[in-house]
Amino acid sequence: METKRTEIQDIGEFGIIDRIAAQVQVYQPSTIFGIGDDAAGIAVPPGQIVLVSTDLLAEGIHFDLAYTPLQHLGYKSIVVNLSDIAAMNGIPAQVTVSLAISNRFSLEAIDLLYDGIRSACEAYHVDLVGGDTTSSRSGLVISVTAIGYQQENLIARRSGAKSGDLICVTGDLGAAFMGLQILTREKKVFEVDPEMQPEIKEEHSYLIGRQLKPEARTDMVHELAENGIVPSAMIDISDGLASELLHIAKQSRVSMQIFEEKLPIENLTKLAASDFNISPVTAAMNGGEDYELLFTVPQNHYEAISKMQDVSIIGVVKPKESGNLIHLKSGQQVGIQAQGWKHF
Amino acid sequence: METKRTEIQDIGEFGIIDRIAAQVQVYQPSTIFGIGDDAAGIAVPPGQIVLVSTDLLAEGIHFDLAYTPLQHLGYKSIVVNLSDIAAMNGIPAQVTVSLAISNRFSLEAIDLLYDGIRSACEAYHVDLVGGDTTSSRSGLVISVTAIGYQQENLIARRSGAKSGDLICVTGDLGAAFMGLQILTREKKVFEVDPEMQPEIKEEHSYLIGRQLKPEARTDMVHELAENGIVPSAMIDISDGLASELLHIAKQSRVSMQIFEEKLPIENLTKLAASDFNISPVTAAMNGGEDYELLFTVPQNHYEAISKMQDVSIIGVVKPKESGNLIHLKSGQQVGIQAQGWKHF
Repeated sequence: METKRTEIQDIGEFGIIDRIAAQVQVYQPSTIFGIGDDAAGIAVPPGQIVLVSTDLLAEGIHFDLAYTPLQHLGYKSIVVNLSDIAAMNGIPAQVTVSLAISNRFSLEAIDLLYDGIRSACEAYHVDLVGGDTTSSRSGLVISVTAIGYQQENLIARRSGAKSGDLICVTGDLGAAFMGLQILTREKKVFEVDPEMQPEIKEEHSYLIGRQLKPEARTDMVHELAENGIVPSAMIDISDGLASELLHIAKQSRVSMQIFEEKLPIENLTKLAASDFNISPVTAAMNGGEDYELLFTVPQNHYEAISKMQDVSIIGVVKPKESGNLIHLKSGQQVGIQAQGWKHF
Repeated sequence: METKRTEIQDIGEFGIIDRIAAQVQVYQPSTIFGIGDDAAGIAVPPGQIVLVSTDLLAEGIHFDLAYTPLQHLGYKSIVVNLSDIAAMNGIPAQVTVSLAISNRFSLEAIDLLYDGIRSACEAYHVDLVGGDTTSSRSGLVISVTAIGYQQENLIARRSGAKSGDLICVTGDLGAAFMGLQILTREKKVFEVDPEMQPEIKEEHSYLIGRQLKPEARTDMVHELAENGIVPSAMIDISDGLASELLHIAKQSRVSMQIFEEKLPIENLTKLAASDFNISPVTAAMNGGEDYELLFTVPQNHYEAISKMQDVSIIGVVKPKESGNLIHLKSGQQVGIQAQGWKHF
């Protein structure tokens, strides 16, 4: 089946902007005006602090189009920014999207990317209020800025963790990293024999979904509020649990101590052990891209947190001099070291 | 003389962020917290609308490092975004900067880029509150988001021009385009004979400066306010006067008619005619990157506008059916056509 290909230059930059603007939905009463002026106008609800976060995704570094559908890429580019707003205990409301795109992409490809962007906007009720579209000499670059709000006294920063606080994490960890391993392996098989279709086992679909189409835990922001809980510190898990624990430790001047047996890694334990010879703990600690929330709360919230379905208490905050440690099932203690993303 | 070269991977992404954060100055009381959390926090002054604008600059498309000093590039990347806020009649207050940068750049190169970014922040009293730094497989990409404020009733959009309004422009036009012609010519000379140093004539330094180090007309926002003038429509001149006139015409459902003899092009008339065989009118209409403001005001502001030193009245708004025209000195009338930037 032939798919239609329209060249970008046939409609030009202004044509693309008109095309995007025509399909924009507005969900937020705070959006006064969006695409069509030199800047968007937002009426921030009184008493709210504006939260601004920005992330840039570059082809060949953050994504590989060999196995990343463009819709999923568009969706993910929004989600990773909304996750940053959620990590402040904020509610996202608007996004801007800037694209640098080479002419090897067709207009239909841009449409697919924006399909994904629109899906994410719809799912999270955020408004696409602006952006910039330009050509690129080589790869695709997507830069998103997200804007959200929260009352100042409800904002969770990285610096508020106190000794004695509980260390909590939402969802499960390491799955996005394992999904990436599977996709990379299938790509290699495909490169050796292009006739061979990538074989994605049913049992792997969860892991691959976690890599290709992550979600931002804005639901947890609402659930914490319903339980009257303001995290003393919070961060989202983009670079791996280890890296994020150390960020909170550094900025709160405390130590973070966690327990292997408490890590929410059951979704990947079997696969990691059998297929890839990767320790599930390593995947959770250094894998990254889970976009779950890591947060600390005072111990008096223990009961409320315990009842929250999708939250695991994985450790406890200690004084700075105690050291950042993971207590292994074997009884050993190991220092926490960040690998993070070594893009350079 | 050997210049020092430190590889980016020697200090890594977090090292770069720490380095940037350590040198940040805060000018705006509205900046509650900046770099160091998942998002920046901004306390918008009560009664103000938040203005958000974003632009992406890609190597090989928007700039050529063969003749663009990195400090100037950093400066310009901020200025073009502040210009968008000024074009809404707003006052810029914060910026975020995202970079995709390949490892052919050294840490010292990033420092130069940020020197320019910091200079712009200092000149305009805006705060660098966040961003993202990542590697790129090829060229340098800079994505900036600017945030500013204004009272809702003082915001100037593109859609408010009325028949009878005066069409005004700040500063002069076409110089940035002529500067680009000079730089491109000198680059070609240099490519033919690398021993030959580019020869920049004294009389060309103004034009080159307009290309390499433009300024945002935030001063005009203040001056308009002092004169009690709120433009009925406004836009900044990034793509050329013709393109911007048509944007206002379209969104205000009016026609824009201007006069060649009123165009502020005296700074380039002589050069354009003799050196490059480019009509100054063409440079002004289709050159772009002047980052001056094009605005319309009701006729009752004629006297006040006439007294403003750096503003030219170049035409008048007509009903939609009259047509977008430039009245040439020869007596001819020519339809206004946008070339804009054809990046694709």
